Amino acid sequence: MANGPSSSQKTLKAGLIVIGNEILSGRTQDANTQWIGDKLNQRGIRLMEVRVVPDIEDSIISAINDLRQKVDYLLTTGGIGPTHDDITAAAVAKGFGVELHDDPEAVRLLENYYGKQELNEARLKMAQVPVGAKLIPNPVSAAPGFQMENVYVMAGVPRIMQAMLDEIIGTMDSGDPILSNTVTCALPESVIAFDLGELQKQFPTVEIGSYPHYRGGALGLSLVLRSTDNASLDKATEGVIALIHKHGGEPRALSIKSSGAALNG
Amino acid sequence: MANGPSSSQKTLKAGLIVIGNEILSGRTQDANTQWIGDKLNQRGIRLMEVRVVPDIEDSIISAINDLRQKVDYLLTTGGIGPTHDDITAAAVAKGFGVELHDDPEAVRLLENYYGKQELNEARLKMAQVPVGAKLIPNPVSAAPGFQMENVYVMAGVPRIMQAMLDEIIGTMDSGDPILSNTVTCALPESVIAFDLGELQKQFPTVEIGSYPHYRGGALGLSLVLRSTDNASLDKATEGVIALIHKHGGEPRALSIKSSGAALNG
Repeated sequence: MANGPSSSQKTLKAGLIVIGNEILSGRTQDANTQWIGDKLNQRGIRLMEVRVVPDIEDSIISAINDLRQKVDYLLTTGGIGPTHDDITAAAVAKGFGVELHDDPEAVRLLENYYGKQELNEARLKMAQVPVGAKLIPNPVSAAPGFQMENVYVMAGVPRIMQAMLDEIIGTMDSGDPILSNTVTCALPESVIAFDLGELQKQFPTVEIGSYPHYRGGALGLSLVLRSTDNASLDKATEGVIALIHKHGGEPRALSIKSSGAALNG
Repeated sequence: MANGPSSSQKTLKAGLIVIGNEILSGRTQDANTQWIGDKLNQRGIRLMEVRVVPDIEDSIISAINDLRQKVDYLLTTGGIGPTHDDITAAAVAKGFGVELHDDPEAVRLLENYYGKQELNEARLKMAQVPVGAKLIPNPVSAAPGFQMENVYVMAGVPRIMQAMLDEIIGTMDSGDPILSNTVTCALPESVIAFDLGELQKQFPTVEIGSYPHYRGGALGLSLVLRSTDNASLDKATEGVIALIHKHGGEPRALSIKSSGAALNG
């Protein structure tokens, strides 16, 4: 299924910069990384690195300029509101060596949303984007994000970020869908580690991850297989199931997203 | 309170590297960043940057070698288990230009935990640390973390990571406690943005953050003030409360951690 004639065989890479002291201080649990990682996956784009940086201009600039060269798409969240601690647009402009300007279309959007009379200085700040930027629509609260070359600047509030991501994801190139199968069992990972490593060697196009967890005091193990190669993914998943049986475990196939009929049945 | 005679007036900085494909793919929600950010705060250490990197040796090495020079303490989570995708110890060794070796004390700990007979190759892998590393005890499941200069390598499973952090946090220098006050209201941030910016200028030692959120469809705003300077923190917090009143809002003082009696009453 994944390898039909329209398959591109591209590996597209993305990075994410989460901007905000509130994540670093522990006050706020970041929820955007998981959402973005998942959406990108569905588009066949692999999130390769996330950086969480504070509301400090130099930190933002250096993260942007470092990462944007390493990936196809760099997304940022946070710091595009009306308050003094919202400095992302200014940092991106500096990072690209351009000026900030009032985007006329952004001003119009904000006028429509707030009314001309209510468009105070703080709100107008949200119309300032780097020269050369393209706006990203914000269907929730008008104030737009923007795109500067391969950098996509989005809001930090999850509801707004998600709406912005919906606007842009379809404009990105799509890679081969990354399919994943998850098999769980109650074996300690050290029991199956050797065989699992051997299986990984047999299937170099499948990424096999082993994730132990405690739930309700009981140890559990999730084995996650990911690949753009559907046939190998299915074979490797069958291998995982077999090795769990071999070591006396009871495999449970969860979240089978490949098209393997044997696993879906 | 914060500025007593024993006050050190140090600003200690930390970084965190979260190692694991499962966070980047969106499969797993990282919970360690928030926990670590909060614990470090309590110790007066400020988390300055987090990087989430995949289980790829070069990515881990480059993140470690970049960040460890920028901070007082660099923590890592993930990738120290027995399976093929656990490559953190090897990456740290390469990053420091030293060999991996079987640590005799780690071997002994694993022997005690698993029994000599059950100590297979995969389990012994968890006794391999870079030459020169100091072990970090693991009261949950024996396999230790380790410290290499200012780099602290911990497990990724939250319960184990938390136990390891408890073991090491007391060995770190402590900075001035970072106190924080949070005041919430239902005003849009663009209404108070100008006055808030002016207030921020008046109190350069207080970091004032403005965080809008949607809960149950209603817009809310949290204003978070953070400082090591208790007196300024209280004054700035009074300023925030006054400006919310000025704009017709209803301030609610939440999570007041400063010693300001006026706010606690």
